[in-house]
Amino acid sequence: MAATQVPEFEHPKKAFGWAARDPSGHLSPFHFSRRETGDKDVAFKVLYCGICHSDLHMVKNEWGFSIYPMVPGHEVVGVVTQVGSKVQKYKIGDRVGVGCLVQSCRTCQDCNDNLENYCSSYTLTYGAKSSDGTITYGGYSDSMVVDEHFVVRIPNELPLDAAAPLLCAGITVYSPLRYFGLDKPGLHVGVVGLGGLGHMAIKFAKAFGAKVTVISTSPNKKQEAMQHLGADSFLISRDQDQMQAAKETLDGIIDTVSAVHSLVPLIGLLKSHGKLVMVGAPEKPLELPIIPLLMGRKLIAGSGIGGLKETQEMIDFAAEHNVKPDIEVIPIDYVNEAMERLIKADVKYRFVIDIGNTLKQSS
Amino acid sequence: MAATQVPEFEHPKKAFGWAARDPSGHLSPFHFSRRETGDKDVAFKVLYCGICHSDLHMVKNEWGFSIYPMVPGHEVVGVVTQVGSKVQKYKIGDRVGVGCLVQSCRTCQDCNDNLENYCSSYTLTYGAKSSDGTITYGGYSDSMVVDEHFVVRIPNELPLDAAAPLLCAGITVYSPLRYFGLDKPGLHVGVVGLGGLGHMAIKFAKAFGAKVTVISTSPNKKQEAMQHLGADSFLISRDQDQMQAAKETLDGIIDTVSAVHSLVPLIGLLKSHGKLVMVGAPEKPLELPIIPLLMGRKLIAGSGIGGLKETQEMIDFAAEHNVKPDIEVIPIDYVNEAMERLIKADVKYRFVIDIGNTLKQSS
Repeated sequence: MAATQVPEFEHPKKAFGWAARDPSGHLSPFHFSRRETGDKDVAFKVLYCGICHSDLHMVKNEWGFSIYPMVPGHEVVGVVTQVGSKVQKYKIGDRVGVGCLVQSCRTCQDCNDNLENYCSSYTLTYGAKSSDGTITYGGYSDSMVVDEHFVVRIPNELPLDAAAPLLCAGITVYSPLRYFGLDKPGLHVGVVGLGGLGHMAIKFAKAFGAKVTVISTSPNKKQEAMQHLGADSFLISRDQDQMQAAKETLDGIIDTVSAVHSLVPLIGLLKSHGKLVMVGAPEKPLELPIIPLLMGRKLIAGSGIGGLKETQEMIDFAAEHNVKPDIEVIPIDYVNEAMERLIKADVKYRFVIDIGNTLKQSS
Repeated sequence: MAATQVPEFEHPKKAFGWAARDPSGHLSPFHFSRRETGDKDVAFKVLYCGICHSDLHMVKNEWGFSIYPMVPGHEVVGVVTQVGSKVQKYKIGDRVGVGCLVQSCRTCQDCNDNLENYCSSYTLTYGAKSSDGTITYGGYSDSMVVDEHFVVRIPNELPLDAAAPLLCAGITVYSPLRYFGLDKPGLHVGVVGLGGLGHMAIKFAKAFGAKVTVISTSPNKKQEAMQHLGADSFLISRDQDQMQAAKETLDGIIDTVSAVHSLVPLIGLLKSHGKLVMVGAPEKPLELPIIPLLMGRKLIAGSGIGGLKETQEMIDFAAEHNVKPDIEVIPIDYVNEAMERLIKADVKYRFVIDIGNTLKQSS
């Protein structure tokens, strides 16, 4: 069992979490270790960690680059327990969070532009090789040690459990709404797909003052979208009459769907100069009709999470405007069942693991 | 022959040009008529008219909406012969031009934003139904009568023959370079395809101060692109090593190719946040991989010609920076042969018909 013993002793600080050991994706208790808190590091006790849909792909090696054992989790929040001598922004007791990234090159143009998320040599929060050669472990664990640059502050107005999903789901939709100028009052924004990302897109777009239309294949989501999440209207994507009536009404669309789907009807919903932004990641190419793009100077773009500066801005904006994900808080020993439910999209809209109260060392 | 007699007598002013009568696309002399010069109209004697590749599609009804008889031509320049009582910008003797549009609604948001080219009810310069119910006839003819709003001034510094192709080919590439921010010195811009549009894209991008790389399937265009047109480098799109070495080096690409082609290698050439702008119009959908867009916040957009205000700016910019298309001036009776050569892309890079000196009424 050398492979599982190395993580326990490769660093000086003991750590404990739940890990997947193979592509079955089954998670179970796991002893490992964290590095000593460096000069610029913040160590924190993990209190909550969101379950992102990508955790599911990763534990099952569905993208083909998983490294086992794997401790998932990149929506991590907690309270600072130790800071390095050169840490400037945080002190013991601070409420903090870590998202998808824990390192980047810090020298490239993107890093200089506070866009670490587009650095070509960033280090993911879990399942990636760190600059010291060890593998990163995520937030389904009792503690984290992270360079303060990759730590954000959670304002007191935000409950820690609800803050967790903002660190991936939140920033993933907030960043493109900002970058593509879909953050202005009076604009009309479409949201495709009503899951972890989609429900956050509705909330942020509403907070920016937009009119929001949800586009979904499921008529039975209409009531939820409009009455509970605050969408202004709802389109069933297969209803040709509805879609035709809504032609050229949207300034932009955030498309959160990862399954292969048709872009043509979505491009049709856009006004001239409208923007269709993909934040879901269909693995196969989609069909792109060019002439409808030409006729209205429309664009289709992708966007992936956000940089650290913008993540802090997003968290502060969420606190100020009371933008919070809808979550179901679960104990750690429910995590495998939660993953099964996630496969069926049976969650409104994000599972958050109560690490602080439920992660106990059983061995 | 009622159908061909109507055009000759439906308006009071006699006009003469060359028309296609059916989808053979063969052009021959044609008597028709122009409306009386209205209060806001400019009448001008046509001196030159460019042959756009779309003229070829239109005379052969390849897009399925051609109306015969058809007088093509939407790169039209000449000298004003008459102005209406309310015309403010032009006087007799002025050098003027008309591009792809002769009317738009003038009330929609796009029209208010000087983007008549995205108005949903514009009238094309030829082969379209005008607001008075008659069919529009283009610039392969001796005269035009056009609302002054759709007329641009040709600066004295620009030869009239070379100015003609700017009115479609020029604005088609100038507008997206501007709108998508690819007009800054020091940027690195790619140009795909080396025809009427592509060679103008090189010249405008160079005039903006960009470094320009041409991407082509034809190695034998390298010398021409670099030595004659001023490109800084040249990539053979099928050469994997070259393409790999150039990965993530371009800020933007103007893709002028109308044939179905792969977008994946082009997206790979873009830096993070890079922009791939399609100005060619492949009729079938292209395959769009989403994950490469997400990873670098890249976008794919379409763009079609430009508004009248920007067309005037483009012409003025061209005059100031000596940006001129490479043209082959031909007599009108060579037009059918020119069309045949255009099918084979056998022109560097735009045919321009010398209407003023060669269009004679033979009947």
